[in-house]
Parts: sequence; structure tokens; C-alpha cells
Amino acid sequence: MNVFIIGLGLIGGSMAIDIKRANPSVRIFGIDTNQEHIQKALTLGFIDEASEMIDLKEAEVVIVSIPVNAALKVVPEVLDIVNDDALVFDVGSTKSLICSEVANHKKRRNFLATHPIAGTEFSGPNAAIEGLYNGKTNIVCEVEKTAFKLQERAMKIFQDLGMRIRYMEPKAHDKHIAYVSHLSHISSFMLGKTVIEKEKNERDIFDMAGSGFESTVRLAKSSPAMWAPIFEHNRENVIETLEEYIGNLLRFKELIEQNDFSSIYDEMANTNRIKEILAGISIKTN
Amino acid sequence: MNVFIIGLGLIGGSMAIDIKRANPSVRIFGIDTNQEHIQKALTLGFIDEASEMIDLKEAEVVIVSIPVNAALKVVPEVLDIVNDDALVFDVGSTKSLICSEVANHKKRRNFLATHPIAGTEFSGPNAAIEGLYNGKTNIVCEVEKTAFKLQERAMKIFQDLGMRIRYMEPKAHDKHIAYVSHLSHISSFMLGKTVIEKEKNERDIFDMAGSGFESTVRLAKSSPAMWAPIFEHNRENVIETLEEYIGNLLRFKELIEQNDFSSIYDEMANTNRIKEILAGISIKTN
Repeated sequence: MNVFIIGLGLIGGSMAIDIKRANPSVRIFGIDTNQEHIQKALTLGFIDEASEMIDLKEAEVVIVSIPVNAALKVVPEVLDIVNDDALVFDVGSTKSLICSEVANHKKRRNFLATHPIAGTEFSGPNAAIEGLYNGKTNIVCEVEKTAFKLQERAMKIFQDLGMRIRYMEPKAHDKHIAYVSHLSHISSFMLGKTVIEKEKNERDIFDMAGSGFESTVRLAKSSPAMWAPIFEHNRENVIETLEEYIGNLLRFKELIEQNDFSSIYDEMANTNRIKEILAGISIKTN
Repeated sequence: MNVFIIGLGLIGGSMAIDIKRANPSVRIFGIDTNQEHIQKALTLGFIDEASEMIDLKEAEVVIVSIPVNAALKVVPEVLDIVNDDALVFDVGSTKSLICSEVANHKKRRNFLATHPIAGTEFSGPNAAIEGLYNGKTNIVCEVEKTAFKLQERAMKIFQDLGMRIRYMEPKAHDKHIAYVSHLSHISSFMLGKTVIEKEKNERDIFDMAGSGFESTVRLAKSSPAMWAPIFEHNRENVIETLEEYIGNLLRFKELIEQNDFSSIYDEMANTNRIKEILAGISIKTN
């Protein structure tokens, strides 16, 4: 089998590593608009060969792992080029727009829309790691629109990566993911911004910040090139989550202003049950 | 030497463990209003003996590790009881009120106000762990108001715990800590609340949430009994940080509403330099 990976960063690179590990005979071809990333991927050894879009006509599997705005343009181009037996899947964090974009493509049945819930705050080929997907969930949308034998080929790959599959409609995916992923990123970025603006003297942050701040602000290291298009694609849902989040913060602030610390206590006690939910996540991912 | 610890939770218990490790001959006495915590501390072995307030007249060192509202009442009572050579220090996350409360106490020179920047999201005696303070910062306020030989006794303990000392005025402490600690906790609690409210079906959170959400919402597991009094004590500063945080979130939402994703990109790119600040924290704590 050959696998073409378009976009040699954290997500595509980590897939390459584990696909190769599970299937040593697979030949992995890398495509990236950034020549340094191609060289790096060759040096790190997670691709066997640099490649070009025109070569996709030979592809058996094409993984599109680039920012969601770029994927919107590139996926239809890929489908135009590949042959009738190729599997093409994307891994973007929004699913409605890409599914609409390819809805009427004559090779729609060659495409599978997926979102592996996995990643770190780092990016680029150097961020690619072994085992990133192991035990994680992969959300697959509109599976019925993909040819059955290509679904099977995809599932074999996801199984090799150690992923659990969950099927969802693109709209439901985008709505839920706004809460459990997109909002977390914004809350973290804005926390980082608020602290940096106030603490011009970084020495003060450095000395006083502990592991709690570090954990809460970790996602503010994430790539703007990846995240700005995600917020654009999921604009309506993200605005809704932000409105609810800001509303909750305003209410919390009002309770403090009113010296109602008994309600402040209750707000926190009610939210403590996130413990059980997170315990579930840990069981799932460990 | 003997050490009395009032409050046998994460903070006091972890201190007991490492003081004993560094000084096996020290005898550690535990005081807690919760009898189960005393029994647990005896079973875990981080205190040698259960004790009562009246016994504090024999104390050489008293550590007050209870919620800040309780400490405000208990520290003056402790100072009333202890002899003239005893060191009493608190470890609370706010420093202005406790320093004001003891300002005119006739044993003010027996007291040292400290805030070890260390902890986890867990609480109670079971949460006590070895090495919690190693490599962390301890903020010491109004050191000049403590008798010199008692400062020395305290510094020996902090050295045994592996802590770096930083001296600050109580007001400056409370202002900065609101940004790098108190705000993180509120952002995390409200993120947890927003997601729980929306996702009544926890199965959806469980399946779709990844390590990013887990990290950002981790602090929402923290103890309300500890945190409600902190917000009460640091009310003015916390309100100010919340206003700035909410302002930044509102601006981010407006940029999305205006489809100004180039500014959204810039906001995130500017905040990415939190990477270097966090790298500093990691170097410090590892």
C-alpha cells in the first residue's frame, strides 16, 4: 500500500509514524507547501519520499492534514486527481463546511470526513510523535456517503492507530466540539493575553505562576494558523459558546460584587462533578 | 524540635512529610477540626500524634494550613497561646488581610506570612504528597516584622522543603496572584460549568473531550471550601482581573462576529509568547 500525506505537521506526521510502525511495508509520500517541512520529515524519517499533487493519481490512501481553510480548497483538488479506488480522508476540527464542499463532487464516495480527537499544543514536523492516537476517539461524519470498501480501508488504518470510532452528523460534531475543544482554546488564549498585558514584567509571572496557571494556559501555545480558520469555520457555534461562557463569568463576578460567597461556593461545588467526567476521559486515554 | 500543623490537608500534610524526611528527629503534632482527617493523618503516618490548641504552649513551630477565612480567626488565637520563642507561619493564598489582622498583636514578631506556590487540584490528607514544594517559590511577606531568629528557623524549614524564597509586600502579592492563580481557577470553573450545562448528556463530553479540555478544566476540581474564602479575601483584585478577562473575551467574540480573522490570528500570535514564559516556569519547577 502507498499513503500520501498532505501537510507534514503534528497531525499528519504522527499518523505517518504509527501507520509505518503497524505496516512496515507501506510506502509513505509527503506533500507540503513548505519545503523545510518536507526536508525535516525526510530527515526524521516519517516519510519515505517527497511528492507532488500530480503524483496523487497513483495514491491508494491520501490523508489531508492541513488547516481547515486550506483543506476546503485542497480536498476537492485531490478528489479531481485521484483514481476511482483511492481513499481520501481529512482530519480537520470542523466538519460541516468540508462535507458541504464535497457534497456534489463526482468522487464524493472516495472521501471520508474524520476528526481524530488528539493533539498537543505544538506544531510542525518536529511535533510529530509516536502513539498520539492510541486510545483516542476518531469522529467520523457521513460515513454512509463513502464507498464501503474504502470505509473498510480507513477503519483498518484507524485500528492500526489504536483509535475508537464514533459516528456523528457534521452539524452535531461542530456544535459539541465548540464546547469541549474550541472554547477551551479561546479561554486559554484570553487568559494568557490578560496576564501578559497586566504583567509587563515577566519576572513576576515567572516567579509567582505555578502548575495551575501552566495547565490552564497551556493551549495558548497553539498554532494561530491552525486555529483562526477553525474559529472561522465554526463561527456560529463558537459565538454561542463564548456568549454562554462570558455570561457565566459575569454572573460569577456579580456574586463576588454582591459578597454572595455562599453562592460562589455552590457554583464551584456544582462544577466539581467535572472530576468524574475527567476521570472518564483519563480512563479512555490512558 | 516539635512542629504543630493546624489543618491536615494537601498543604499541611505535604509539609509534614518533607519536614519529617529532612529531620527524622522532629516530632509532628496534628490539629484539625475534622476528626477523620486526624485519624487519616495518623494512619498515613505524616503526624506522630494528635493534638489540641491548648498544647500549642509547648510548640516550637506552628504551621497554619487551613482556608484563609479560618486562618484569619485561628492565627491570632495561636499567637495568644504560644510562648515567646515559637514560630507561627500561615500558608494562605491571600496575604493582605492576615497581615492586617495580626498587625497589632503583641506577638506579631512570632508570626511569618508565607504563600508557597504549590499544590494540586486535590484536597484532604490523602492528597498529601512527598516533594510537593521542591523547586517551588515561597512568597514571604513583611519579613522585617518577624523576629530575626524566627526568620532563620523558618528559612531552614523552607530550605529543607527545597523552596526558593521571594519577598513581597502583601498588597503586591495579592494583586499579582489574582492574575496568575485566582483568575486561572475562575476561568477553569466557569469553563467546566459552561460545558456541563450544555452537555447534559455526559457521554458526549466523555467521547469528544481530549487532553486539551482536560488540561484547561483541571482546576475546576479544586476545593470550594478553600477557594470561596480566597475570592472573598481578594475580592477587589479578583473583580479587576475578571473585568479584564471578560473584556478580552468580548473583544475576541466581536472580532469573530465581524469576520475579522486576521485580527483573531494576531491576537493568538501575540499570546503565543506565553511559550517562553511557561518554559521559564518549567525550568523553575523541574
